[in-house]
Amino acid sequence: MDTKTSATINLTDEQRIDWLRLIRSDRVGPHTFRSLVNHFGSARTALDRLPDLAQRGGATRPGRICSEADARAELAAGKNLGVSLVAPGEAGYPPRLAVLDDAPPLLGVRGASDVLMRPVIAIVGSRNASGAGLKFASALARDLGEAGFVIASGLARGIDQSAHRASLASGTVAVLAGGHDKIYPPEHEDLLTAILGNGGAAISEMPLGHVPRARDFPRRNRLISGAALGVVVVEAAHRSGSLITARIAAEQGREVFAVPGSPLDPRAAGTNDLIKQGATLTTGAADVINAVEPIMGPPIELREPDGDEPLDIDPAASDRARIVDLLGPSPVLLDDLIRMAGTSPAIVRTVLLELALAGRLERHGGGLVSLI
Amino acid sequence: MDTKTSATINLTDEQRIDWLRLIRSDRVGPHTFRSLVNHFGSARTALDRLPDLAQRGGATRPGRICSEADARAELAAGKNLGVSLVAPGEAGYPPRLAVLDDAPPLLGVRGASDVLMRPVIAIVGSRNASGAGLKFASALARDLGEAGFVIASGLARGIDQSAHRASLASGTVAVLAGGHDKIYPPEHEDLLTAILGNGGAAISEMPLGHVPRARDFPRRNRLISGAALGVVVVEAAHRSGSLITARIAAEQGREVFAVPGSPLDPRAAGTNDLIKQGATLTTGAADVINAVEPIMGPPIELREPDGDEPLDIDPAASDRARIVDLLGPSPVLLDDLIRMAGTSPAIVRTVLLELALAGRLERHGGGLVSLI
Repeated sequence: MDTKTSATINLTDEQRIDWLRLIRSDRVGPHTFRSLVNHFGSARTALDRLPDLAQRGGATRPGRICSEADARAELAAGKNLGVSLVAPGEAGYPPRLAVLDDAPPLLGVRGASDVLMRPVIAIVGSRNASGAGLKFASALARDLGEAGFVIASGLARGIDQSAHRASLASGTVAVLAGGHDKIYPPEHEDLLTAILGNGGAAISEMPLGHVPRARDFPRRNRLISGAALGVVVVEAAHRSGSLITARIAAEQGREVFAVPGSPLDPRAAGTNDLIKQGATLTTGAADVINAVEPIMGPPIELREPDGDEPLDIDPAASDRARIVDLLGPSPVLLDDLIRMAGTSPAIVRTVLLELALAGRLERHGGGLVSLI
Repeated sequence: MDTKTSATINLTDEQRIDWLRLIRSDRVGPHTFRSLVNHFGSARTALDRLPDLAQRGGATRPGRICSEADARAELAAGKNLGVSLVAPGEAGYPPRLAVLDDAPPLLGVRGASDVLMRPVIAIVGSRNASGAGLKFASALARDLGEAGFVIASGLARGIDQSAHRASLASGTVAVLAGGHDKIYPPEHEDLLTAILGNGGAAISEMPLGHVPRARDFPRRNRLISGAALGVVVVEAAHRSGSLITARIAAEQGREVFAVPGSPLDPRAAGTNDLIKQGATLTTGAADVINAVEPIMGPPIELREPDGDEPLDIDPAASDRARIVDLLGPSPVLLDDLIRMAGTSPAIVRTVLLELALAGRLERHGGGLVSLI
């Protein structure tokens, strides 16, 4: 089963257990998950082959494989909290998120899943926002909500909170960096309760019990923009987290909107810079609506299909050595690697898969890979 | 003598008297002045032919022709005030202004004329500016001045005043809507004295004694932008005068810069709109310098040459009637008019000249003309 389709699918209970085991196993991220399932045809087969592949990739110690018991326990605990684990293409999985290369194979969805199937605009910005910024975020979220858009944000203090609160009635989605039972900041438990109580939802790709660390926030930010048609940055200083979200959004092909401010206001430095770099200057909901209306149809599959790769390729040791030689700490484009390797794309991909499972490969954005 | 050349020229004393008489005569604006001199080869011949042309154009009463005595009196009075009347291409005439279609044939220059030969940036904005706007205008004018630019503005309250004051030491130019002896607002006489005392200049195309009226300000604004490489709008509400300057600047091919502000600040509504329409978002001098550096060479002649038109064309009555029929209260493009008239461009231009001198033609921007 391929994770990249946006057509309606339904995992069987057994498949869901296998998928959850695979994505919760060591060194398996969304990219590697997708390669494995494409390669072996099912998560079950991939699970069986993980130790062998990691060894071929030069793993110094075997990675931990999530047990069936652990997976069943996570599903049951989620159920108690009202969290469903849904796959791309299943009901409740945001359709635009589903078509991304690094879409979570299983997304924990809590609350009203239908809100996630509607057009989403993300509103993000400073935790330390000005009164004017908070007021603008509120008005924008309310106006976009009245125009039929669902508002996604990160449940943080400041702009996020204003955007969520102003769109409680029309529908809002909190995108979490930790597990559904580890809300950050803790004082926003009440806000989350209000979101869920008003027909909104919360989503997370992290397991229950996962306390969000600093590095989880940029990773989470790709879900905020990925679920949305576009991202509005309301206030952002230089080098703020919201600018990372904007960069990821642009890489994902999402519209980026930024709210201008006085050059004398440091909280507008980041948004003014975004506008200089091509973001749409936004002074109200109309600017957002005008830009996204033409792209409001069903999401378009931007990835190239992988084609039918033969199952169970066993690269020759010489191919593997050559590909490892071509890799280094500097990121290289997968396409360049394939060209330089002088062998088939399928063999290159298989070697990369082995290296990833051995914990030796890092995937960057934009098809770039490097050796760790 | 053609007014459009940017090469160095020098009018003789007698030519200057003739030019001044012609531009100060009724119904002769910069466009008509240029057509007449191109047509008849000299201002003197044009003056002789004015009554006849106006009559052919259907003038109901003869226009007043400025007498030689009045012209000599204006030159003498100007001299007493330190005002020189210079022609495009003469020293002291801003080179970029000189190449515009509607460049004043004679510009009254007071103060240090060399400041007008250096690269100019215009800074304009609200009279009713915020403290932040005034502070930003000051900093921008100072930084651009330190980078070698002369600052042009309109001597108004608010942004204009801040821009002039901050560039006193580096060089600033006040562009006046009235005569050099009718300063508006009157309380800015001191500011003008400071500008002139610090090696700056003031320019005006209006005769001495002319008290500026409301309609003179948009006309003046074309000189502010026309003399400059680009215009920075610092603060501007919707429908403010600075937006007219920005529109004219864009029509003149000048760079338009706008300083962003909060969507909740009505004084930023105009500048935010300008950025939406393509103006360069400006948070500091570097934004301006980066944009104008590539265009800082000598000004490029953008007008098409008129060619050698035969002197003293006498359009047939039927041609004149057809062209008048084609004209109406709605502006029409000169090029379209020439095509529809089915006669030579020289004849169409001659008829338009006659109509202008009869007070029956209005010239709009962008080569559009209409019947009054």
